[in-house]
Amino acid sequence: MGILPFVAELGLIDHHCHGVLRVDSTREEFESLLLEADSVSPLGGSFFDSAIGFAVRRWCAPLLDLPRHASADEYLERRNSLHITEVSRTFLMASGIHTFLVDGGFQAERLLSAPELGSLAGADSHEIVRLEHLAEELSGTATANEFLDQFRQRLRSSSAVGAKSIAAYRVGLALSGERPTERDVLAAMQARSPGPVKDPVVISWLAWEALDAGLPLQFHVGYGDSDIDLHRCDPSLLTPFLRATASLGVPILLLHNYPFHRQAGYLTQVFPHVFCDLGLATHGLGHQASRVLAEALEIVPYGKFLFSSDAFALPELYYLGALMFRRALSDFLADGLRRDAFLEEDAHRIARLIASENAARVYKL
Amino acid sequence: MGILPFVAELGLIDHHCHGVLRVDSTREEFESLLLEADSVSPLGGSFFDSAIGFAVRRWCAPLLDLPRHASADEYLERRNSLHITEVSRTFLMASGIHTFLVDGGFQAERLLSAPELGSLAGADSHEIVRLEHLAEELSGTATANEFLDQFRQRLRSSSAVGAKSIAAYRVGLALSGERPTERDVLAAMQARSPGPVKDPVVISWLAWEALDAGLPLQFHVGYGDSDIDLHRCDPSLLTPFLRATASLGVPILLLHNYPFHRQAGYLTQVFPHVFCDLGLATHGLGHQASRVLAEALEIVPYGKFLFSSDAFALPELYYLGALMFRRALSDFLADGLRRDAFLEEDAHRIARLIASENAARVYKL
Amino acid sequence: MGILPFVAELGLIDHHCHGVLRVDSTREEFESLLLEADSVSPLGGSFFDSAIGFAVRRWCAPLLDLPRHASADEYLERRNSLHITEVSRTFLMASGIHTFLVDGGFQAERLLSAPELGSLAGADSHEIVRLEHLAEELSGTATANEFLDQFRQRLRSSSAVGAKSIAAYRVGLALSGERPTERDVLAAMQARSPGPVKDPVVISWLAWEALDAGLPLQFHVGYGDSDIDLHRCDPSLLTPFLRATASLGVPILLLHNYPFHRQAGYLTQVFPHVFCDLGLATHGLGHQASRVLAEALEIVPYGKFLFSSDAFALPELYYLGALMFRRALSDFLADGLRRDAFLEEDAHRIARLIASENAARVYKL
Repeated sequence: MGILPFVAELGLIDHHCHGVLRVDSTREEFESLLLEADSVSPLGGSFFDSAIGFAVRRWCAPLLDLPRHASADEYLERRNSLHITEVSRTFLMASGIHTFLVDGGFQAERLLSAPELGSLAGADSHEIVRLEHLAEELSGTATANEFLDQFRQRLRSSSAVGAKSIAAYRVGLALSGERPTERDVLAAMQARSPGPVKDPVVISWLAWEALDAGLPLQFHVGYGDSDIDLHRCDPSLLTPFLRATASLGVPILLLHNYPFHRQAGYLTQVFPHVFCDLGLATHGLGHQASRVLAEALEIVPYGKFLFSSDAFALPELYYLGALMFRRALSDFLADGLRRDAFLEEDAHRIARLIASENAARVYKL
Repeated sequence: MGILPFVAELGLIDHHCHGVLRVDSTREEFESLLLEADSVSPLGGSFFDSAIGFAVRRWCAPLLDLPRHASADEYLERRNSLHITEVSRTFLMASGIHTFLVDGGFQAERLLSAPELGSLAGADSHEIVRLEHLAEELSGTATANEFLDQFRQRLRSSSAVGAKSIAAYRVGLALSGERPTERDVLAAMQARSPGPVKDPVVISWLAWEALDAGLPLQFHVGYGDSDIDLHRCDPSLLTPFLRATASLGVPILLLHNYPFHRQAGYLTQVFPHVFCDLGLATHGLGHQASRVLAEALEIVPYGKFLFSSDAFALPELYYLGALMFRRALSDFLADGLRRDAFLEEDAHRIARLIASENAARVYKL
Repeated sequence: MGILPFVAELGLIDHHCHGVLRVDSTREEFESLLLEADSVSPLGGSFFDSAIGFAVRRWCAPLLDLPRHASADEYLERRNSLHITEVSRTFLMASGIHTFLVDGGFQAERLLSAPELGSLAGADSHEIVRLEHLAEELSGTATANEFLDQFRQRLRSSSAVGAKSIAAYRVGLALSGERPTERDVLAAMQARSPGPVKDPVVISWLAWEALDAGLPLQFHVGYGDSDIDLHRCDPSLLTPFLRATASLGVPILLLHNYPFHRQAGYLTQVFPHVFCDLGLATHGLGHQASRVLAEALEIVPYGKFLFSSDAFALPELYYLGALMFRRALSDFLADGLRRDAFLEEDAHRIARLIASENAARVYKL
């Protein structure tokens, strides 16, 4: 159950992540950032008693010069005795990620920006524009008429290498297969109250505009925090949208997908412009990530699956995301080799595709 | 693939089960009670040719002094040659369950009550009040106005340690996130015909009342008999209800969950008052229970997962539920230890949490 | 990870497949026929980089006298140097399938018919009538009134051993639990435009008529090409229809089911007339088929699960469907034997049931 040497040495492109926190965390904050819960549950005990919690103690402790499986208290004490910048650099460097694509549109003020993250990690970094965030920013000052033009222009002049939709959080993934008319979007924007964009017409229009601008388009799918209604985040609800956008030839990337990763695999197989990953689920599952990665790869062509960490706030999560991904990919390939399913040279090629080559092709890096 | 010694010796709290039959069973009845089918299918062969059927022959036969894998005929012949009380005591004692929480609201006349079950097993027992059953009992004699008061009072004066909702069977799990008004409940009760309660307003009100009374609230979720529409029993349909009730701080327990155990895991992680188990699926899967338990534990904090057998009518099911659970938990922990995911002392703590400590905390036993 | 000898030698009934192509394929056509995609994606690379692609190189190459893992180019060059009839005979004979049940209602002109397929393979073959195809054929010339009679008569005089519904592709699986009245069917047929039948009343009527004619009725479920909306192909949506038809005692067979194979298992367990298979998913998953077959068999009585290849067009798919199925079944049984879940003689019986005896019983072969 070690990692195959060629997988251990793979350079990774992390095509979906966020920034790291600028400051130290209290124990309570640290625990709740490990998972998708808003806070620790007094009824349910410490989040260190979870797959990710044990992974921190097992894998992160040694990077802070503690023994494997150091206790949670020891770990946090040592972590807080170091400068957060040092802690962050240590885990980022150890991840083996050479390129970060950063969604900077969530809690930007608390987190390092894309360039800051890249600089700290000694890696390349690029921005992913979060569509709803940009729309909310612009609509604060623009009239509905101005908004449409300004949004379009900002997308086209952006240095971002891709866009991200959080339709899952706002309206679910059952977007219409019909492109909204400009008239309907205008009406929706005129009727809109301040705050989060929640109109399905607007959410859908943002996604179409990103594709028009030629930006590879990421969708949050499945597993997330308590704001989502999970059954409305089944990727197969996106089918009409995917069918309608296939001819544009712009990549669409389904993020996370757990527990709908098999549904995502189906969509990725049958639609030429669809790609997927396991995102958040990789570090979230800790020592159990191998089974779920194997499931996710059941029917997906290997040229269409990507690595991402979805790491957010805690630098440990980039490291664990990359490490758990390597272990799971290694288990997948080792099992295939043991079953004589493919040659060693094929295993190397599959590994390179998934680790970075697919991302480089999709995002034109 | 043996059981780790510390798992074999764990005392269990079975937080969801029913009573055992007072009398012997014919072969046909025995077969149909092994599974969730109403009856054996002449088209499809004997239910002994199933995971649970083989588990009876393998594991239960030796407790009746038969060789492992005795034939179905031999097994039933021996079983019927003994007194049912003796058979029941044998399997209950062998289960290692020291506390039973019994839903006595289904086919009560055929089954041992909670105190009778505890007494036969030499174990503690407590009642779980089945909300719809209580409502149907009271509404037979009370006016709509009286019903609301009487129901409330019965819950508050009950010695039950928890309540159970079978919304899944009656209206599905898409309960509203809004608490029903007393006026709407009254109107629904006035309009109601005799028989099972099927009004979503009433079903929802029963659940809110249980939480108000401070009773930990169980929901049947997923896998059950042919009365359910499985897609309406996806636990993520409960999201609005869970969101609305989180601040009450009263535990909600998602039972069974198969094949939605990953969805249940998500809800258990993100909502502080939510807990889950694998119930029925443990014995139902026989020798394959390990994979599904591992899946169920992917993202669940270990302080929020419980053991239950959902055993009903056949004493074999308590024993097999406990045994298959031990084997699956042992496989999960052994795999984690082999991967160096946690220390042996952590494995012991996880085992104790899941076997009994979480249940003791949730139900204040 | 070899195949248990008694599984390797099992004669198979393939209860759901199509014909093979009459002519050679270009590389592009070959690749797209390996999967459910309409075409290869320039963005996503070759479909030879997939589970099924690697399985062709590993397992099919040696049957064309090439080394294991021959390259895709070598493989296709050799394949095209042989006569397609020779290639087809080789793979069909190697599959060990002795009886084919052929859905001849899709792209009939390009493919061998059921008798041609049987003759080439030296095997028995029977037809499955595709309900929507027959309806579309008849409704081209008949009035609405004539249509009902003619359809009924064709079903009753047919030599087919079963019928197949593609409701999943046309309206999804949420068929009503009420039998449509003849009057409603007439109205729907009168209102109908030429082309595919898409009216849920008509689709449902076709299914009821097949059952009335005593024909075992197959439903496409789950995984298919890009025409389906996967979430509308969850078999649990069929529950009201299954409940309504249980008393007829005519078998209903859920095909493929991936990724809803656990839902299909539930329905198969609780409804006496329901059976299921893993169809398309067996060869589609290549070396990973074992885990999914094990999942599919979790709660299904072994007298209710069947083998099918869903092979279409490429003769390699019959061979790989059968081979991957044998490997997966062997892994399942070997695991059960290793865990002492059942005796060797039980394993033999389970294998025979699934390989052919269940199909022979259901279709009265």
